[in-house]
Amino acid sequence: MNSPSSLARIRVILSRPSHPGNIGATARAMKTMGLSQLVLICPKRFPDEEATARASGASDLLQQAKVCATLDEALNGTTLVAGMTARRRDLAAPFLWARDGADTLIQGTRGGHQEVALLFGNETAGLTNDELSRCHLGIMIHTNPEYSSLNLAAAVQLMSYELRLAAVRPEPQPPSGQDFLPATSEEIEGLHSHLEQVALATGFLDPHQPKRLMARLRRLFARTRLEHDEVSILRGFLSAIERPKKRRTSPLHTPPY
Amino acid sequence: MNSPSSLARIRVILSRPSHPGNIGATARAMKTMGLSQLVLICPKRFPDEEATARASGASDLLQQAKVCATLDEALNGTTLVAGMTARRRDLAAPFLWARDGADTLIQGTRGGHQEVALLFGNETAGLTNDELSRCHLGIMIHTNPEYSSLNLAAAVQLMSYELRLAAVRPEPQPPSGQDFLPATSEEIEGLHSHLEQVALATGFLDPHQPKRLMARLRRLFARTRLEHDEVSILRGFLSAIERPKKRRTSPLHTPPY
Repeated sequence: MNSPSSLARIRVILSRPSHPGNIGATARAMKTMGLSQLVLICPKRFPDEEATARASGASDLLQQAKVCATLDEALNGTTLVAGMTARRRDLAAPFLWARDGADTLIQGTRGGHQEVALLFGNETAGLTNDELSRCHLGIMIHTNPEYSSLNLAAAVQLMSYELRLAAVRPEPQPPSGQDFLPATSEEIEGLHSHLEQVALATGFLDPHQPKRLMARLRRLFARTRLEHDEVSILRGFLSAIERPKKRRTSPLHTPPY
Repeated sequence: MNSPSSLARIRVILSRPSHPGNIGATARAMKTMGLSQLVLICPKRFPDEEATARASGASDLLQQAKVCATLDEALNGTTLVAGMTARRRDLAAPFLWARDGADTLIQGTRGGHQEVALLFGNETAGLTNDELSRCHLGIMIHTNPEYSSLNLAAAVQLMSYELRLAAVRPEPQPPSGQDFLPATSEEIEGLHSHLEQVALATGFLDPHQPKRLMARLRRLFARTRLEHDEVSILRGFLSAIERPKKRRTSPLHTPPY
């Protein structure tokens, strides 16, 4: 398993970004996924109020961002460079989808303290052929062929997300907010006996024609994977159903006066 | 394989969105991934110039967006409802990560023409407990535990992306921009013979101490998976190296006068 420390060795490089809002939104997108190294090549406006506003709680990434004059300076010290493109281009190969590209980059951070780069082109023009020729691989995000216009920060968000999943490999289930105690099979059998008893007492279940009624109820509760507390709630409910019934029937058995 | 028509049966529902910019960015995020049904419950400002500006080329989704007064109205006709939450909450279960949640929703569109809903809460407050209690499952996006503040439209972008991948299941490699013809093994052997010949002629390869030089060059070119055109380029280069050498040596063999 990779530790998220691999995320610290990934540089997100924006080449010639035009809109400061995109720089801020990029910082926020990166930080939500645990990335921290933002590099800007010749940003049109930076620092800028709009960038800071859109960064929200990620303004620390803007303060630490490295501003470079050239691609060489931005790539200095990296051993693997991936370029994001909206369509397959001829010069760089191989081309990978975002998920496989993220895996490749995380692999690239392994061994020693190697740094890798993920390069995004200008909002309108994308990467130049010169920029792309410096990339070891091209990465594409699968989009609607009829409208593939991903916002720059949205593309950064998607790649940062894929990089996080590739680095962290989370547990199959989100962590529980509280510890739910699953019901034991005795508790579940107790519930089904109680259910059947109430079903018979209320006349809902005809013992001469039971059909598949109890089996259907078993199926329903098996699917929900009952918790300990839920069995208690349901049995309390069943007991409450039994009580008023006794009260209702009591006049027939016990003369009120 | 699911066709993207399953994407047309997914409603993205924003409950009480505060910022029209987020509504516009949501429309753009959805359309880039092939989703089309946007539903708004009590938006604070809609329609709005800012929403239209941020939607960019996806303003058609805003025009077709359904504005509802209640959650009941928004969910009308759906058979599966998933709610997005930033942390695991107690009331709704099961909770799934985004990828598995997207798979479950796409499965839910199968069979007949069932519609499914993906519900996003207000930017600040998230989903209310009442809203969450209407959900069959909760979906979480894996984020940095130290800064999990995903922008609303960014969360829509990530889920739309996962839904697209779950619905389309793209080919392992992005489509090629042009047809690259791989080199045949004869072409590659021809290249290696030519390389060796030039390496010997230039004195780079010592036939009495060849070491592993040719094997290393073989390894390099095996890794790149050469194309037909690339072999031609390399052999042209090798021929050019051979020619000037002949010219340089020619005075020794042919007296100039």
